[in-house]
Amino acid sequence: MNGVSLLGDMLQTIAERGRRFLSLSGREEAGTGGVEAICETLLSSHGEASGMALAKTVLDRWSRFDEKQRCDFMVMLLERFGPDAARLEKAIDNYRGLRTPQALLELHSAAEPRRQELIRRLNLAPNGIATLVRMRENLLMMKSAQPDLDAVDADFAHLFGSWFNRGFLVLRPINWSTPADILEKIIRYEAVHQIDGWDELRRRLAPDDRRCFAFFHPQLVDEPLIFVEVALTRSAPAAIADVLREDRAAIAAAEATTAVFYSISNCQQGLRGISFGNFLIKQVVEDLRRELPKLDTFVTLSPAPGFAQWLAKERKDNASQVIDAADRVLLEVLDEPDWASDPARSAAVQTALTAAAAHYFLRVRNSQGKPVDPVARFHLGNGARLERINFLADLSASGLRQAHGLMVNYLYKLDDIEANHEAFAGRGEVVTAPAIHRMLRQARPPRALAVLRGQPPAGGTAARGTGGRGTGELTS
Amino acid sequence: MNGVSLLGDMLQTIAERGRRFLSLSGREEAGTGGVEAICETLLSSHGEASGMALAKTVLDRWSRFDEKQRCDFMVMLLERFGPDAARLEKAIDNYRGLRTPQALLELHSAAEPRRQELIRRLNLAPNGIATLVRMRENLLMMKSAQPDLDAVDADFAHLFGSWFNRGFLVLRPINWSTPADILEKIIRYEAVHQIDGWDELRRRLAPDDRRCFAFFHPQLVDEPLIFVEVALTRSAPAAIADVLREDRAAIAAAEATTAVFYSISNCQQGLRGISFGNFLIKQVVEDLRRELPKLDTFVTLSPAPGFAQWLAKERKDNASQVIDAADRVLLEVLDEPDWASDPARSAAVQTALTAAAAHYFLRVRNSQGKPVDPVARFHLGNGARLERINFLADLSASGLRQAHGLMVNYLYKLDDIEANHEAFAGRGEVVTAPAIHRMLRQARPPRALAVLRGQPPAGGTAARGTGGRGTGELTS
Amino acid sequence: MNGVSLLGDMLQTIAERGRRFLSLSGREEAGTGGVEAICETLLSSHGEASGMALAKTVLDRWSRFDEKQRCDFMVMLLERFGPDAARLEKAIDNYRGLRTPQALLELHSAAEPRRQELIRRLNLAPNGIATLVRMRENLLMMKSAQPDLDAVDADFAHLFGSWFNRGFLVLRPINWSTPADILEKIIRYEAVHQIDGWDELRRRLAPDDRRCFAFFHPQLVDEPLIFVEVALTRSAPAAIADVLREDRAAIAAAEATTAVFYSISNCQQGLRGISFGNFLIKQVVEDLRRELPKLDTFVTLSPAPGFAQWLAKERKDNASQVIDAADRVLLEVLDEPDWASDPARSAAVQTALTAAAAHYFLRVRNSQGKPVDPVARFHLGNGARLERINFLADLSASGLRQAHGLMVNYLYKLDDIEANHEAFAGRGEVVTAPAIHRMLRQARPPRALAVLRGQPPAGGTAARGTGGRGTGELTS
Amino acid sequence: MNGVSLLGDMLQTIAERGRRFLSLSGREEAGTGGVEAICETLLSSHGEASGMALAKTVLDRWSRFDEKQRCDFMVMLLERFGPDAARLEKAIDNYRGLRTPQALLELHSAAEPRRQELIRRLNLAPNGIATLVRMRENLLMMKSAQPDLDAVDADFAHLFGSWFNRGFLVLRPINWSTPADILEKIIRYEAVHQIDGWDELRRRLAPDDRRCFAFFHPQLVDEPLIFVEVALTRSAPAAIADVLREDRAAIAAAEATTAVFYSISNCQQGLRGISFGNFLIKQVVEDLRRELPKLDTFVTLSPAPGFAQWLAKERKDNASQVIDAADRVLLEVLDEPDWASDPARSAAVQTALTAAAAHYFLRVRNSQGKPVDPVARFHLGNGARLERINFLADLSASGLRQAHGLMVNYLYKLDDIEANHEAFAGRGEVVTAPAIHRMLRQARPPRALAVLRGQPPAGGTAARGTGGRGTGELTS
Repeated sequence: MNGVSLLGDMLQTIAERGRRFLSLSGREEAGTGGVEAICETLLSSHGEASGMALAKTVLDRWSRFDEKQRCDFMVMLLERFGPDAARLEKAIDNYRGLRTPQALLELHSAAEPRRQELIRRLNLAPNGIATLVRMRENLLMMKSAQPDLDAVDADFAHLFGSWFNRGFLVLRPINWSTPADILEKIIRYEAVHQIDGWDELRRRLAPDDRRCFAFFHPQLVDEPLIFVEVALTRSAPAAIADVLREDRAAIAAAEATTAVFYSISNCQQGLRGISFGNFLIKQVVEDLRRELPKLDTFVTLSPAPGFAQWLAKERKDNASQVIDAADRVLLEVLDEPDWASDPARSAAVQTALTAAAAHYFLRVRNSQGKPVDPVARFHLGNGARLERINFLADLSASGLRQAHGLMVNYLYKLDDIEANHEAFAGRGEVVTAPAIHRMLRQARPPRALAVLRGQPPAGGTAARGTGGRGTGELTS
Repeated sequence: MNGVSLLGDMLQTIAERGRRFLSLSGREEAGTGGVEAICETLLSSHGEASGMALAKTVLDRWSRFDEKQRCDFMVMLLERFGPDAARLEKAIDNYRGLRTPQALLELHSAAEPRRQELIRRLNLAPNGIATLVRMRENLLMMKSAQPDLDAVDADFAHLFGSWFNRGFLVLRPINWSTPADILEKIIRYEAVHQIDGWDELRRRLAPDDRRCFAFFHPQLVDEPLIFVEVALTRSAPAAIADVLREDRAAIAAAEATTAVFYSISNCQQGLRGISFGNFLIKQVVEDLRRELPKLDTFVTLSPAPGFAQWLAKERKDNASQVIDAADRVLLEVLDEPDWASDPARSAAVQTALTAAAAHYFLRVRNSQGKPVDPVARFHLGNGARLERINFLADLSASGLRQAHGLMVNYLYKLDDIEANHEAFAGRGEVVTAPAIHRMLRQARPPRALAVLRGQPPAGGTAARGTGGRGTGELTS
Repeated sequence: MNGVSLLGDMLQTIAERGRRFLSLSGREEAGTGGVEAICETLLSSHGEASGMALAKTVLDRWSRFDEKQRCDFMVMLLERFGPDAARLEKAIDNYRGLRTPQALLELHSAAEPRRQELIRRLNLAPNGIATLVRMRENLLMMKSAQPDLDAVDADFAHLFGSWFNRGFLVLRPINWSTPADILEKIIRYEAVHQIDGWDELRRRLAPDDRRCFAFFHPQLVDEPLIFVEVALTRSAPAAIADVLREDRAAIAAAEATTAVFYSISNCQQGLRGISFGNFLIKQVVEDLRRELPKLDTFVTLSPAPGFAQWLAKERKDNASQVIDAADRVLLEVLDEPDWASDPARSAAVQTALTAAAAHYFLRVRNSQGKPVDPVARFHLGNGARLERINFLADLSASGLRQAHGLMVNYLYKLDDIEANHEAFAGRGEVVTAPAIHRMLRQARPPRALAVLRGQPPAGGTAARGTGGRGTGELTS
Repeated sequence: MNGVSLLGDMLQTIAERGRRFLSLSGREEAGTGGVEAICETLLSSHGEASGMALAKTVLDRWSRFDEKQRCDFMVMLLERFGPDAARLEKAIDNYRGLRTPQALLELHSAAEPRRQELIRRLNLAPNGIATLVRMRENLLMMKSAQPDLDAVDADFAHLFGSWFNRGFLVLRPINWSTPADILEKIIRYEAVHQIDGWDELRRRLAPDDRRCFAFFHPQLVDEPLIFVEVALTRSAPAAIADVLREDRAAIAAAEATTAVFYSISNCQQGLRGISFGNFLIKQVVEDLRRELPKLDTFVTLSPAPGFAQWLAKERKDNASQVIDAADRVLLEVLDEPDWASDPARSAAVQTALTAAAAHYFLRVRNSQGKPVDPVARFHLGNGARLERINFLADLSASGLRQAHGLMVNYLYKLDDIEANHEAFAGRGEVVTAPAIHRMLRQARPPRALAVLRGQPPAGGTAARGTGGRGTGELTS
């Protein structure tokens, strides 16, 4: 990393020198007014000679902006760095007249907001990409208040999609030999099961039966983009405590048969919507198979972040087709504190709760016809199958709050991934282990029959939802 | 590089597995027919799950295509992977109606040829970027015969501009400790002064007073993009033989005062038009100054590739305002073999020849109002000044053929670069050392007076051309 | 480090295979009996063919030995792997007869215990050196009980002296980008000012004004041998709290004028007596000067580990020539708890305490005529000068226990190091800042005059001790 | 390597500074007189403070010495830096009196020439080890003229044995991605089949079915110590031309079943006698098996460097028991030019020549009872078996001169290596493929019977020589 930082120093010097040429310091006016002029210069022919210096000035100044100024900056990008309207009108007319490839090319080019090229040139600054990612992170926070900024965000997203193309990412193992500054970020970015300091981090990385992998971009050497934590085990765990328990005995990696992906975290808010996760899992599966040929099962242990919220709504809805009166009473146990640590009460609620969960995953759909659970959408969309719903699997406060302690195993079976994906993406089917259908069936026998009519693709059973009607319609 | 190749192997495996899912081998039809279907699949939702496999299949197949098939492939990209015409019509109407940012966003998006996203997805294949660069190299050769393909080329160029953004390039020194496979490419790609094998390469890289630097892209680890060769000397050389002579005595780098950029070569035809050269020189200047604080002069020793051709035309043109009858006779010496090695004859032709050259650089302009010499355009556009025209500076066959043996020093003075660039880019002025004006004046005294009226910017003398009128009009 | 571990795997395989040839598992007898036979085989010609396997077997077995067996092993090395007595007798006779170089060569060779070659061959095992270092660590613990083992230890020390020759060591910066497994060892090995976990480690490594450097051996890639922690400041600190305070504000490294070596720790007990420390400090000084040219002062902030113990003895000795009756009373304050946090009491004791300390450093000598304080011996022997004695400088429990809170600055002035070292090593002089002599003088005026007669070497004042007589005799 | 050279620069600076302290430049006297004083200082306590500077001075001065001065230097080491004679006498007496381990320790220490510690301290100089290796290279050349220097050489050899212990060496592949400065040394050091420039080097390194591996020492980063060239084939080649032919078609490495070690070269004359070769081959075998599991045969194609010389002597000896009269006539063909390219003549001589070769390898022994052929001793000592003698295998001038064109395959069968080595090292047996015995038998039937009485170890046939009697006695 020394080489990289030497280069960084050098770029810094070049950029500083350029600044001097331009006497940019002299132009330093408050707010975005001065910045707009510099941005225009950067887009002009000067940008070719002094691009680095100009870009650095803009990014430095942005870094010192307060929230108000940052908002002004984005509005400026929206209003002043859109396309040249006159040129666009002409290009439209020309295209409608000629319909040649050249006319189209000009139309596309004329319709491109000038800020796209501006952002490209801002990337000339030393370490520009890191600042641009933070810039978009900031922009995403503004968008709810200012929906118009969607158009600016679209340009960032478009460029980031090109720059963070999977073809440019590098998979690196994260382990106890990884530099501390990166490990520190793993602690910070872990979004699923919080890491309580370095001792816990060590327990997740150092034992022979633990692995972690992250994607990096060559220009962001010490910033992981996304990472996955893996436990090597002899069977798919049914509770997160089995994986994270401090006093567990590690096994030899070579003896493991199962790789459990128990936590996947995106690190960069500024890259939201730029998808790496599906590539990550598939590549890690290949990597682990190569290293440990005895591994034959690849499975997640995943949260169900939307379940409790959905269930609360159903329980309140007296017309619910999911929760009948008997269940409604049973489920009241969930409102009592400590029910989960009381064997009697938890036994009482188990059947009703898991039946509701089976329904939640198999039947309930969002307006695109996909499951409402975002984690389910992610793994099913990747070609995994819904393998098991685990009761009392995450007894942490957040686990109980989000999903009444349920967790889910999704199974990645390499030979079925493609067919599963096709079933899910094309026909909206959720490929599922038969046992999950039985949960459903036990709870609500009459409906289960309908399900059985579907053909189970790829060794599983397909549950076809009826997209677009919010909570699932069971009689479809 | 081992790590990289391991990763390569792994990506290969993932891609092969994906191929199997899709039974792509089964679909292998001759020609581009089958490829078109795969490209469509790659653009569809399947592309997310099996993108790597699909992309690899397309690129593998393209690699085996003959020229005819490759041409068909490009025509397919042109005709079948343009924008969705109906969507575009709608987007135009919508934009003309609403003129909102969202409407513009949709217009830009609808006008984007679908092949842009296709090319992005092709980059998912292991080592995809290398094949895409070769694909464009091939496309550039086709374009003269099929100008319509310009539109396809524009899409490649657009994406390459993003992907090879200066912010992602890495400067690496090339020396005698560089891996042989990269050095072999330096031999192959050297475009200015041919390298005759490894012994000559060693003479250019190993001595203490020789340097070489190249830009690399992180995903093309063993492919230099552009490189510059540097000689460290005690004064600016007036002839290339002084730099390349086998029996010269090296000096200690720490004693050098002058860094001579005597050869700059672009390596990748497929990246034509994606500009790195200006960044390269400036960064190398900074790098050398940091390492060797005694260096105070940064200068090129450059060819004048267009001079002989231009002069031939002038000599044939009896109405030439540059060559008068006396000169025309003198210059006939140039048609004799071996004139350059004959002191008498070369002395006879020197004044007329260098005066013509001064005119060529200072007065003659292309349709954009810039000098016709491409090397001059490059360095002057970077902010260098035209410092010296050297007679009998390159006596190689190509040096005599291209420029009757003339070579040029361009001076990079850091504190003037910005002003020089501004003068050149903004006002079309060629910033020049006074001596070059005197060459001109000696030849054509009356006109020289006019020149002197201009204000010399940045310590040099400015020669203002009159763009657009081909050969220069001296009375401007 | 991947490459290294791959190599490690490979060596492992080779060694395992060799084991099989020898059916060594079959020979696995309890205790050292079996090991002795294997050691003999390793020394025989078989050692050439199967050395790796044999060496691995011995080291593996040793690793599983209990303390008793390890002791037996060392006794075996002592008794069975000394020189060949008959050959030695003959070599002595031969040498006394001939006195030729060849006879001497044979004598030296015959007198070499066979265990030296045995240890060399044990180093053939994969990662052998690490086990050998642990082996000596263990041996050092046994030596007090079994002084005869000195002879075995001498052989280890002799070989380690060769293998860990400064010429083979590599200096590496330790910072927040260092792999966690190495940082973990820094926490563990810090011997001067304990590091309380990762947060404190970060405060010592990450800020711009903090540095750390360690020596490594190429074959012990993740084991630091010795490290030094450095604070960059604007003046030499008088108390360790100034350096370690959690809430201090970091300064920019480029603004620092002073580098403070505030902690030096040896990491490997098994390398005791193999000296690296002097090389470490000098190389770090050069390294920092190169990076930060504004640094002009290099100084330690060091403990005085022997002071309290020495003072206790003097206070008990009514005949002490150092502590007079008045001081004895004053110094009783030191026996009260919390005196150090009570301004009145600490003011009362200051003069007497620092005068005693000045005496301790300047006058008291051990049997080799050197100061009794080991830290003083180390830095003075390196050519530093005793610069300042700091009162209330380390208020930690151990600081108060060891040295009543005193700490010392030793100054490394590059141009004086050689002369200082010469004065110390050759003439037993302690080069000292004049202020320290004044401390002494204030306390005991009559004696101070004597001191002033000495010539202050290298800009300091020389205090000449009288080795061998315990507390210093001032009139020598 | 940059990091290393930065460190080198820094060490240089430290050493230069030390020099200044000592005003060593002032002491620069001609010849070794001045050097002796510096060497004494280096051994004294000053050596601890200024060791680097002093060591650098000595090595720099030695580098500038002429041959006469270098010889004086070695004589100085011999005469002035032996042991302290008085101390040694006392140590002998003490030992003879006490016979304790401590007395022995002192004896060994007293008998150690002081130059051993001196050489250790010379290694403190930046890049000291490289100069010391050259120093011994030089010493080895002097030894024939001055046998007394053997004693000095023994000290160098002793230290190098420790420093270049196998445990410290690193195996690195040499391929077409290796830095050019190292490849240049491969060209230079290749000692078996000369490499004619870079194009031939590329043919030996770049194809998929070619490999090369070298041992490096961590402190000699760009100096290979020994390397082996490997061809991956489908069968053991019988002629070197099959391996080196320019126009051969490469096969895919994955298809190879046989790895042929066709050239092993030691690189450093100064490390003569420090053995790495056996470790190299075994490690490369393991490495290749790991990478290419289909490889099942590991075999050399080796020269027979002593054969022609031995045969010439036998042919001249009318009493030879090896060459009878008929053979003697047949073998006269060998004296004719171009016999090897004449099918008729080469057919005529084949049987007699190969029978003599079989005798040469199986029967002829040196004074230690080992084969006279050094290459045979090396491979048989490593546990290989003599597999095949190839007629007309090396038609180069040197191949014909050394061995009448014969080459030999030695087979490394991992499971037999240990037993083969034991048979060779312990009982002097040459483990041989039966076919080679048949060559012998055809030539000399009566003797062959005797051979058959021996038990063939490890699947081969054992030929037991009768050490010490020059040419083999067959009836032993």
